Amino acid sequence: MENKRGVKSKVTFKREGKDVIIPYGKTLLYAAYEGGLSLDATCGGKGTCGKCKVKVRGSVSDPTQEEKAHLSSEELQDGLRLACQARALGDVIVDSINDRASQKILVHGVEEPIIVSPSIQKIYLELPLPSLEDQRSDFQRLKDTLKIRNLVADLEVIQDLPQVLRGNDFKVTAVLKGEELIGVEEGDTTLKSYGLAFDIGTTTVVGTLMNIAHGSQLGVSSGLNGQADFGADVISRINFAKEHPYGLRRLKEKIIEVLNEIINDLLEESKVNRENIYEVVVVGNTCMQHLFLEIDPINLALMPYVSVTKEPMTLKAKDLGISINKAGDVYMLPSIAGFVGADTVAVGLATYLEKSPEVKLVVDIGTNGEILLGSSKKLLACSTAAGPAFEGAQIKYGMRGTTGAIEAFQIHGDDISYKVIDNVPPKGICGSGLIDIMAELLKAGIIDGTGRILSPGEIGPNFRTRIVEGENGYDFVVAPGILLTQGDVRQLQLAKGAIYAGIQILKEVLGTEDDEISQILLTGAFGNYIRKESAKAIGLLPDIPLERIKSIGNAAGVGAKMALLSIKERDRAVELSESIEYVELSNSLKFQEEFMNAMYFSV
Amino acid sequence: MENKRGVKSKVTFKREGKDVIIPYGKTLLYAAYEGGLSLDATCGGKGTCGKCKVKVRGSVSDPTQEEKAHLSSEELQDGLRLACQARALGDVIVDSINDRASQKILVHGVEEPIIVSPSIQKIYLELPLPSLEDQRSDFQRLKDTLKIRNLVADLEVIQDLPQVLRGNDFKVTAVLKGEELIGVEEGDTTLKSYGLAFDIGTTTVVGTLMNIAHGSQLGVSSGLNGQADFGADVISRINFAKEHPYGLRRLKEKIIEVLNEIINDLLEESKVNRENIYEVVVVGNTCMQHLFLEIDPINLALMPYVSVTKEPMTLKAKDLGISINKAGDVYMLPSIAGFVGADTVAVGLATYLEKSPEVKLVVDIGTNGEILLGSSKKLLACSTAAGPAFEGAQIKYGMRGTTGAIEAFQIHGDDISYKVIDNVPPKGICGSGLIDIMAELLKAGIIDGTGRILSPGEIGPNFRTRIVEGENGYDFVVAPGILLTQGDVRQLQLAKGAIYAGIQILKEVLGTEDDEISQILLTGAFGNYIRKESAKAIGLLPDIPLERIKSIGNAAGVGAKMALLSIKERDRAVELSESIEYVELSNSLKFQEEFMNAMYFSV
Repeated sequence: MENKRGVKSKVTFKREGKDVIIPYGKTLLYAAYEGGLSLDATCGGKGTCGKCKVKVRGSVSDPTQEEKAHLSSEELQDGLRLACQARALGDVIVDSINDRASQKILVHGVEEPIIVSPSIQKIYLELPLPSLEDQRSDFQRLKDTLKIRNLVADLEVIQDLPQVLRGNDFKVTAVLKGEELIGVEEGDTTLKSYGLAFDIGTTTVVGTLMNIAHGSQLGVSSGLNGQADFGADVISRINFAKEHPYGLRRLKEKIIEVLNEIINDLLEESKVNRENIYEVVVVGNTCMQHLFLEIDPINLALMPYVSVTKEPMTLKAKDLGISINKAGDVYMLPSIAGFVGADTVAVGLATYLEKSPEVKLVVDIGTNGEILLGSSKKLLACSTAAGPAFEGAQIKYGMRGTTGAIEAFQIHGDDISYKVIDNVPPKGICGSGLIDIMAELLKAGIIDGTGRILSPGEIGPNFRTRIVEGENGYDFVVAPGILLTQGDVRQLQLAKGAIYAGIQILKEVLGTEDDEISQILLTGAFGNYIRKESAKAIGLLPDIPLERIKSIGNAAGVGAKMALLSIKERDRAVELSESIEYVELSNSLKFQEEFMNAMYFSV
Repeated sequence: MENKRGVKSKVTFKREGKDVIIPYGKTLLYAAYEGGLSLDATCGGKGTCGKCKVKVRGSVSDPTQEEKAHLSSEELQDGLRLACQARALGDVIVDSINDRASQKILVHGVEEPIIVSPSIQKIYLELPLPSLEDQRSDFQRLKDTLKIRNLVADLEVIQDLPQVLRGNDFKVTAVLKGEELIGVEEGDTTLKSYGLAFDIGTTTVVGTLMNIAHGSQLGVSSGLNGQADFGADVISRINFAKEHPYGLRRLKEKIIEVLNEIINDLLEESKVNRENIYEVVVVGNTCMQHLFLEIDPINLALMPYVSVTKEPMTLKAKDLGISINKAGDVYMLPSIAGFVGADTVAVGLATYLEKSPEVKLVVDIGTNGEILLGSSKKLLACSTAAGPAFEGAQIKYGMRGTTGAIEAFQIHGDDISYKVIDNVPPKGICGSGLIDIMAELLKAGIIDGTGRILSPGEIGPNFRTRIVEGENGYDFVVAPGILLTQGDVRQLQLAKGAIYAGIQILKEVLGTEDDEISQILLTGAFGNYIRKESAKAIGLLPDIPLERIKSIGNAAGVGAKMALLSIKERDRAVELSESIEYVELSNSLKFQEEFMNAMYFSV
């Protein structure tokens, strides 16, 4: 570097609208830091991580060896450089920083982008060849080139090392997880870096394949949780684990099977190589978390309902039987309490409640119902056993939200209309349809405030023919061969009562009123499809204006993806799991009281 | 604690001869630190590690809960206390600190005691029981009681946790490795803490069982390295690994078999429970290290002789197939270069060369010969392929130093006398016998300076009948049916020449002369038994006064035990592996020249 003491350069960060004056010959990374801009440079500016890419024009130094290792000649021609290597030799304009690393994985209505900073880093290296003058061990050679003094490696990586190095003339890609070398691959494979996010529900498992170098999504696939063969809900599965020899093992194997099937689907679809999947992130309710790890869940079901662990766990995918790269890990998000699991933490990640100045309410209705209430000041969570009714279980003509399910229902004057998924003849009723039907029958006066379906004699002539005698009173004919029974209404009353009462208790503990709730966010396998008008009409949700209620999709799945793409989000998850205060409802007399009241309808 | 502002207490550390004045109510640990005394308190004074035991008299506070957890009532009555808990309420006399933790595991003639501070800690805990008011997870409960915020645990430990906790009323012993929980055991098992140190030689494997809480040795057992079935020396084993399908795997399995047999022997003898063995420390030459870990050793044998790794490695015993506690680890010491292994690092540990102000020479002769030369200023190492001759291989009547081996030999005037191991009729000659015979025959003029065994006509009448014609000239009859052949003499010349030349090269690189060498320490399977007079007589060692030459036993084995008992010794091992400078002899013309000269005898 020429000595030009006293000469200054101006570096203009265009997108950020910032001019920074720095001494001649200083790097653009220096300029960014001087200008208070945050630029991802994991390696600390050594030129090894390749993360601080910038697009530049103007007087900059020639590309260094490190830049040539991280940027193709097209990229260099295109003005791409590493900020830690490129030095300002005059005025420089930085058009963009770190462009591809900032991704928006949004839940509807939440506007925080996340910076892609996965736990896995791939670095391309060209090692000096061994000689009698340079007898460093293979591993030392790699370590020195990586400049990571405390590098450690799995035995398998070490075992493969001599062959991989010599297979491609000592030009290799190191796969790093922090200071752990989890793989070495021949040639430059830096862009082939993938991971999977799984949301393991009691009923459904959803997997998403992502490129964790870019943050782009390659595919989604789902399957039924095969544990359902041994019980539809968590309690029956806990009993199965307890009562059958190898019951726990069998439940674990069922879920692993599903994951592997989903992985196979995603690989086939995307043409991604299995060996390039380095990490799996998993969320689920606490029972699913226990079963997935073959941890006895029995104490979740027994007073005082404690889990074995709520910590985040990192495990070898291989040890669990999950088929990805042999050194790949599985990261399971932490949970909050015995019945508020990693899925709720993931919902917390996706909804940023802990950063909200105003109180928000999140209702997550899947097979179980979890409720989050609070703001940046304080966050509360509780769990109610509300789910099965909404998911169609225990409802006579209930079904999941698939082909043939009545998903919407309306009464206009004397007419009835409904919507069936995929426009086929109706086979049953899914959760959102159920709520619609309830809301409309209440409005039409066919169901009274106590939840009783009126007799034909008590209602108007137009719907009289739809009332038939049933097992526990009268049933309502929704469509040919499909009834809403009196029993169904009772189930729904229990379910909506539990959720409403849970919300009341959280409000009370937090010391807040309905009009202070700035937003209600609905999520979960069911919550996502609900018509908010109907939910409000049946008294599932507090009485706040409709425009403040939002369906935000599968927030748990979004949270899982966020944790896959960013280790900072994992830190947030741990903070959330520790800071969210769990409110136990089972020993609360107040909850019993609220629950009794909330079972009725206000008509 | 009563407030007695300004009041002081005098704490007298009797053994250390130190009085320390501290404020009223401060702990004895505080006093020790104030007095500049080092006291092992791994937990930082929280009362959880139980390491800072002291024996006291005088005015001290009543025992705390923490002390009751770590000390029996007899111990408390006996005046034992935890220095971090006991507070001085007046003058206090501390009779002894940390008594049982200081152990001498010495090599002959080296006088440094080591402080027992193993990587494994066992802590007895009584956890609060779960309730609806205290719904912490099992793991959280344990973690909080241990007061280790970043505690992590293997999945298997978590899986066992609910049963172990509930099996003994939440009174358990935590087994910790740093901040990793590797086991939880019912009841108080703190004193049952064992480990194994292994020295894996090319020919012999030696294992030592130790109580790692106390540092006491429970037993030693050894076995033959079963890899010998596939080749006597490292080069033939490397070839076997290369040329046979699964050759590497088979070599690895052979060595694991031997370790497991030795473990079984030691367990049977000591009545120790396998589950209470938590760690294995392994040293060996680089080739043994590679084979033990199933790492391809081929590049050790090919120019430029690089190893795959020289780092210390920590592995799951389970993954390697070694039968100890299921969560137990294997720690392998680091090595220095392609042919200077962890065994030499262990020799360095045991001999404290890096702390010696004066230059010392260590010659380790096993199946290979390694040489260390230097002082606290600088340390050098090299390796010569000298071993097999000394170990009996390639010597016509050679054998290892077991029953029936001629281990010493003398000529007094016209008489010959020899000593046979176990006083049976002689079956062969072991290394020390071989050197004696050579030395005596040289002195008697039966072998000349070039190494030629003279013809019957050239020597005096008394030994004339002992000279017989052989394949390559004349052979000497040592005992009935046992000959020293001309070929044997040539082998020995090569071997001693290589070692002597290696020493010369190290001297030259270090810039030192014979009279600056304050000590020669002989170690290794062979080195240990050598008569130093004979070694000097045949020109194996530099010409320094006999009283400065010492046999120090199996220094590598001692180093392995030191690393087992103390993580500080492991740090020392890493420092040694990095600071000892390796001198490559294979491309040194100077070495070739020295070697040529050193093959002859000076008579």
